[in-house]
Amino acid sequence: MPKVIEGGRAPEAAAHVVAFQGERAAYSEEAAIGHFGENVSLVPRRTLRDVFDAVENGLATDGLVPIENSLAGSINESYDLLLERSLVITGETVLRVRHCLLAVPGQTLAALRRAMSHPQALAQCARFIEANDLEPVAAYDTAGSAKTVAETHPARTAAIAGRRAAQLYGLEILAEGIESDPDNYTRFYVVTKPGSAGATGPGLGQAKTVLVFATPHSPGSLYWCLGAFAYRGIDLLKLESRPIRGKPWEYLFYADIRGRCSDGHVAEALQELETKATMIRVLGSFASATAGPV
Amino acid sequence: MPKVIEGGRAPEAAAHVVAFQGERAAYSEEAAIGHFGENVSLVPRRTLRDVFDAVENGLATDGLVPIENSLAGSINESYDLLLERSLVITGETVLRVRHCLLAVPGQTLAALRRAMSHPQALAQCARFIEANDLEPVAAYDTAGSAKTVAETHPARTAAIAGRRAAQLYGLEILAEGIESDPDNYTRFYVVTKPGSAGATGPGLGQAKTVLVFATPHSPGSLYWCLGAFAYRGIDLLKLESRPIRGKPWEYLFYADIRGRCSDGHVAEALQELETKATMIRVLGSFASATAGPV
Repeated sequence: MPKVIEGGRAPEAAAHVVAFQGERAAYSEEAAIGHFGENVSLVPRRTLRDVFDAVENGLATDGLVPIENSLAGSINESYDLLLERSLVITGETVLRVRHCLLAVPGQTLAALRRAMSHPQALAQCARFIEANDLEPVAAYDTAGSAKTVAETHPARTAAIAGRRAAQLYGLEILAEGIESDPDNYTRFYVVTKPGSAGATGPGLGQAKTVLVFATPHSPGSLYWCLGAFAYRGIDLLKLESRPIRGKPWEYLFYADIRGRCSDGHVAEALQELETKATMIRVLGSFASATAGPV
Repeated sequence: MPKVIEGGRAPEAAAHVVAFQGERAAYSEEAAIGHFGENVSLVPRRTLRDVFDAVENGLATDGLVPIENSLAGSINESYDLLLERSLVITGETVLRVRHCLLAVPGQTLAALRRAMSHPQALAQCARFIEANDLEPVAAYDTAGSAKTVAETHPARTAAIAGRRAAQLYGLEILAEGIESDPDNYTRFYVVTKPGSAGATGPGLGQAKTVLVFATPHSPGSLYWCLGAFAYRGIDLLKLESRPIRGKPWEYLFYADIRGRCSDGHVAEALQELETKATMIRVLGSFASATAGPV
């Protein structure tokens, strides 16, 4: 069983002390255990910002940060924090998200009237919610809604959360896999302090480098920047534009490319990009443990 | 005052009957009135999907769809619906989002304990909420939280919503502009049925074309696609990658470019792109009423 560190205690001698955002039993906790194993120590935090704080302050060795969901898209706040803060990405992991309907033992699906969860989880289960004539109730958190149902027993109300939340809060799983679209995956980055050990978990996959750059506001500027990779046959795995704060409708680009930043052709490409971009920063370079073209 | 069409009644003879997502007084309603004027007829709908339905079924002449917030980033569901459905983009408008703290008349800020709103609005007002020692309470909707406060008078609880919601629900504005970052703008697209009148509102700005394309999964493929625009000096205003449903970690690209798709050099670029992309669709081509490099 994972050990949980609440409050502000110093980390103990565990291989990995992992901060994640959410209540206990959040999907991030599921991902942390999937990546680091059951012996990990867990540091649940209220916000993503608090996760970065916990790693920067040495309370956790690693932070687990959701970066993209296959249905909902990129998690913008994570991208913004990667830019604002100085932590580096040292790994990644992918979780298949399976939403469950969790109720106080003895309840039946037919007797339920309401389903409580984070608005995004409610949206992902819209078909199930409609088919069962439930009223969706917004909450802060998926696992938090399970905790609320377990602690306050609201009348005819179930929570939508992960299967881990059922174990932790003593709820019954009335239905599993209730998301409308089964292609529901969340990708997480592992972030650590620069210069710390680095290799986290089973990082045996293909190498990947994540960087952020800004382009001059002129026609073709992104094209000229991407040429640095294209002419060297470096695969661009993902490209994400984000507005620049304080400059509405100007954009930063977050790019995932194949290869380590220390590889000769990648290092050359990054040097060329420096001459074309107005800003560039490598956020991490690591071996990905995930399968497929991630 | 705008006329509101509730339920399923047929549209009446108004120049523009505009469907938007949210309760009455939602930020989308503010944007609709800003774009079409006070004489517009309004069709509030519960979901973005319902907005597309209302326009497709002829209940509304136009739909107003949020596409991007300067802080939170792109609204993924809108991008997905633009791809799934057959409506075309015929205009755009930008709203400066100013969150207000709204309470039942007679309440004071000092006596309040809780602030209720959509999780995103709560996050955008995090500093104000902390500084005033309020507990954030998640709700489905900003304007909906104002309605709840006005109707049920929850103890020591205020709503965070727009100033329009204060008028509509008889609430008092205890504080205005409480968002942490003043660079808070939301950009909306106007969508209509293909072949309908097209020009909506004061579309006097620069022309813009929005398209979506998919690239083959090989190194440099996005670069070769963007060359179609770069070599013709066509400004790329925005580029957004979105996962392809059913193909985790493969991507579509949504691009905003300067110019109309009927302009010679743009038409040529699109023809070239067709030979390089695995899929391409123009979602709209219109004169933008917004200022700046949008």
